Amino acid sequence: MSKGIVYLIGAGCGKWDLITVRGLEILKKADAVVYDDLIDNELLEKAGNAELIYMGKRAGHHSAPQNEITKKLIELSKAGKTVARLKGGDPFVFGRGGEEMTSLKKEGIECVYIPGVSSSIAIPGFEGIPVTQRKISQGFMVVTGHTASENEDEEKNIIKPIIDFPGTAVILMGLGKIEKITSELIKGGKNPDKPAAVISGGNSDNPICIKGTIKTISEKTKKSGVKSPAVIVIGDTVNIENN
Amino acid sequence: MSKGIVYLIGAGCGKWDLITVRGLEILKKADAVVYDDLIDNELLEKAGNAELIYMGKRAGHHSAPQNEITKKLIELSKAGKTVARLKGGDPFVFGRGGEEMTSLKKEGIECVYIPGVSSSIAIPGFEGIPVTQRKISQGFMVVTGHTASENEDEEKNIIKPIIDFPGTAVILMGLGKIEKITSELIKGGKNPDKPAAVISGGNSDNPICIKGTIKTISEKTKKSGVKSPAVIVIGDTVNIENN
Repeated sequence: MSKGIVYLIGAGCGKWDLITVRGLEILKKADAVVYDDLIDNELLEKAGNAELIYMGKRAGHHSAPQNEITKKLIELSKAGKTVARLKGGDPFVFGRGGEEMTSLKKEGIECVYIPGVSSSIAIPGFEGIPVTQRKISQGFMVVTGHTASENEDEEKNIIKPIIDFPGTAVILMGLGKIEKITSELIKGGKNPDKPAAVISGGNSDNPICIKGTIKTISEKTKKSGVKSPAVIVIGDTVNIENN
Repeated sequence: MSKGIVYLIGAGCGKWDLITVRGLEILKKADAVVYDDLIDNELLEKAGNAELIYMGKRAGHHSAPQNEITKKLIELSKAGKTVARLKGGDPFVFGRGGEEMTSLKKEGIECVYIPGVSSSIAIPGFEGIPVTQRKISQGFMVVTGHTASENEDEEKNIIKPIIDFPGTAVILMGLGKIEKITSELIKGGKNPDKPAAVISGGNSDNPICIKGTIKTISEKTKKSGVKSPAVIVIGDTVNIENN
């Protein structure tokens, strides 16, 4: 029996053709594909004869607990299979890929990382918002608003660096907390007139981008009625066309 | 004459097959390819019959000034050509892609962004260092040490957010300033025992990864004799296998 292996593959952002060439080649030859949400169905169709195993959340249901997913990956690879573990974006950007990697390594299973296009960079990029720009944005940071909601202290930990940061801040999964995030930023001394944007449906065919400032973006977003998932971008590159 | 267009394409990190499927398809059909350094030669071989135009720096020479590159892109697209502008990593991560986009738009030229795998995420990833990890790293930030060298104030602007940040800090092009960066971090109150890594040659076949702490990494790196380009990573995910 051949030795099993798990490829942690970043599927990229949105459409199937934003996977890397390397990722697609592995997918075509895999024995099993373990996937969750944010994976384009067209991508799954490229998967040759692989067994397709869905472990995400359907409408109204919770996603499979992480330990069930890990158990499945271990089971498949111990049966000698080549497993493509497909994740939206990059496996190591809020994808819990690190956890899967460490669990697999502990079991002595080979685990190979195949990077992917991260939505944190690409979703603003598709709207013409570069995360960095010479003389305008000296770097970027990526956090989740989701984290912010779990713990008051962690929330402060995330807000403070955004206040001090001279680059672009990208906040994933933050729409539900946008009012709190922006008011905390202003309270902490961030310039209320700093440009801000909300991009809703960045993985879909019809993303909606709303622009304003830290002061106005929460109200503007509310009025627009846009829904999660959404990416919040804070920084001067939001209005790059005016520079 | 057909209307020209420029695709700003992220070539990804290192090997040619880390470009996206979409990027490769455009490259195959392009009339002209404008590329610089950090582009795998094998990738250029995929470019069909396109004219290949090199605008990077050869050993001992400076790279083409940005305005010359932009001029070339405008000239080619105004001649009705489909231009693939290949950039290492993602075009909007320190690639000056934003500048090229705004210059092209001002000329009324269509410019389409094709994201790429960013070395800021992938180079640590290949060494088993995820930029985020639940309960361990709540986000990541990416800055350049290069920026730090230009201006004292900008340098402080970059150091302070790293001190406050509870996630992973990735510093590109920072090897020449590593002693200064780490000592400023410690002076500013960052825990000197926080794990740190230097990955040299992350785009090559044989990257070297040196691990230590904020306190030890500069000396360790110096002793190892590793060279630029290198990526510095600061944060607890450097030692994720111990968690």
